[in-house]
Amino acid sequence: MTYRVIGDWGTTRLRLFRVEGDVVVARAHGPGIGGIGDGAEAAFAATVESWLVGGAPQSVTLCGMAGARDGWVEAPYGECPADAQAWRSVARRFDWEKVPVTILAGLACRHDDGMPDVMRGEETQIFGACQVEPALAQGRRLIALPGTHNKWALLDDGRVVAFRTVPTGELFALLKDRSTLGGAADATDPAEEAAGFVDGLDQAGEGRLLTSLFAARTMRLRSGRSVSWTMGYLSGLLIGCEIGEVRASLGEGQDIVLIGEPRLSARYQQALDWQGLQSRTMDGEACVLAGLLMAEGRKI
Amino acid sequence: MTYRVIGDWGTTRLRLFRVEGDVVVARAHGPGIGGIGDGAEAAFAATVESWLVGGAPQSVTLCGMAGARDGWVEAPYGECPADAQAWRSVARRFDWEKVPVTILAGLACRHDDGMPDVMRGEETQIFGACQVEPALAQGRRLIALPGTHNKWALLDDGRVVAFRTVPTGELFALLKDRSTLGGAADATDPAEEAAGFVDGLDQAGEGRLLTSLFAARTMRLRSGRSVSWTMGYLSGLLIGCEIGEVRASLGEGQDIVLIGEPRLSARYQQALDWQGLQSRTMDGEACVLAGLLMAEGRKI
Repeated sequence: MTYRVIGDWGTTRLRLFRVEGDVVVARAHGPGIGGIGDGAEAAFAATVESWLVGGAPQSVTLCGMAGARDGWVEAPYGECPADAQAWRSVARRFDWEKVPVTILAGLACRHDDGMPDVMRGEETQIFGACQVEPALAQGRRLIALPGTHNKWALLDDGRVVAFRTVPTGELFALLKDRSTLGGAADATDPAEEAAGFVDGLDQAGEGRLLTSLFAARTMRLRSGRSVSWTMGYLSGLLIGCEIGEVRASLGEGQDIVLIGEPRLSARYQQALDWQGLQSRTMDGEACVLAGLLMAEGRKI
Repeated sequence: MTYRVIGDWGTTRLRLFRVEGDVVVARAHGPGIGGIGDGAEAAFAATVESWLVGGAPQSVTLCGMAGARDGWVEAPYGECPADAQAWRSVARRFDWEKVPVTILAGLACRHDDGMPDVMRGEETQIFGACQVEPALAQGRRLIALPGTHNKWALLDDGRVVAFRTVPTGELFALLKDRSTLGGAADATDPAEEAAGFVDGLDQAGEGRLLTSLFAARTMRLRSGRSVSWTMGYLSGLLIGCEIGEVRASLGEGQDIVLIGEPRLSARYQQALDWQGLQSRTMDGEACVLAGLLMAEGRKI
């Protein structure tokens, strides 16, 4: 049977889907684009190898860091404001072993303060979310994709009008594993960590991240808190401050949708709730698949 | 001739001074208290060894991390608000080889938000600054001691009423050396770095640290900025945000005095100036010496 290959090639992993009609019939995983240097084509070939036995795919459609400067083949950025149609049209197309390959564009924007911002891969999930739930493409929506480098996008009638990248996850990992604030980082008491998280959210209400960091250490030294508490506190403080800053810079949406890993999304939901904001979650894989299928031109 | 030993034993180094009357006649350097474990007494003995040949000192007076839990002998904290007299009175005293040793107290305070804060060593410089310049002990003054963990203290008629520790230096080092924002960190273009510093100060005006970090990367990717620019930008952003937060949490003083390493102090002066605040610098060693001599009881 004829099939197509679609996939998301990020910094840390390659996820490929074999699609027949609109149905995913198989999956394959490969290495992330980060650190494979010139080996992107070889890594792709190795990952799809077993599928090729019965014949080549009709097409390959990829999103994510595959299109970065250090990726497989560089794809452009669509400039915001961008709707799905504009974004799709700037993809990079080429042939690989006589198979037509499309590497989808990222998105770029420029903030009011003149600073540029970029994303690669998240736009596919955002436009995909609007396929999964068409009502999202009407009105103003705030879409958050928590991860190492969180993306917050403001969607206005289906167009991404602005977005912000916030490296909260990376900063948390540095503070946890590499700083003198984190302590020996084998946090194991969930109740202590949850209490610390709430204290961090509370502290974040002041919007003063830098002057609130050192309490992660002094609360152990002077107030008997544990390393677990510290981890929760730092997480709550960072996420709480992040949400405050994003609200100030992007404005509010009528709806906040979180797309990402469930445990992290739950933390963001709690933090949003703490600031009086309702939110809900959508499944990341469902969104990326819907976005890829739409980008193929089969569902728009 | 009879002599005394005074010194500052910090995390990264031990600085001892041989004093005759009120005059420093010799110096000796040894290892910081961080990482010597149980070896504090031996390290101290080795550092003063050559001075002991002509006889033991009349006394030893130390400030800093010598009094930490993991230091030589734990000294208490004086609770803020604290003036020089109250602080001196809570020092830890014991004999070493029949020589009376005083390890000076640190200071502790509790912020309005309930979080504790501590310092060990900087209080000696602050009270010493008031010896060097007695006018500082009148009115409200803001004293900043930039370093890895910056201390900002509010002085009211010579009493330390509150202070804040801000780990800006540590955070900058993490972002520079360990993050994906810093790039290969061999910044070498001073003009580019200076331009980045000003852009960072400018950006800090919004008071949004987290959502401003990623521009360190995107300005290289999209706007042709160099790694040198990035280093300056991150430094300006952090220092600018720090000053904004400290002003909001500690309030303003009629005067801002910077005590610390000249190059870093100059950056803080520039950043304060950017926010319309006058400041001036004092020499750190002069302040710590004046504080130690005062704590000995010879100059108060």
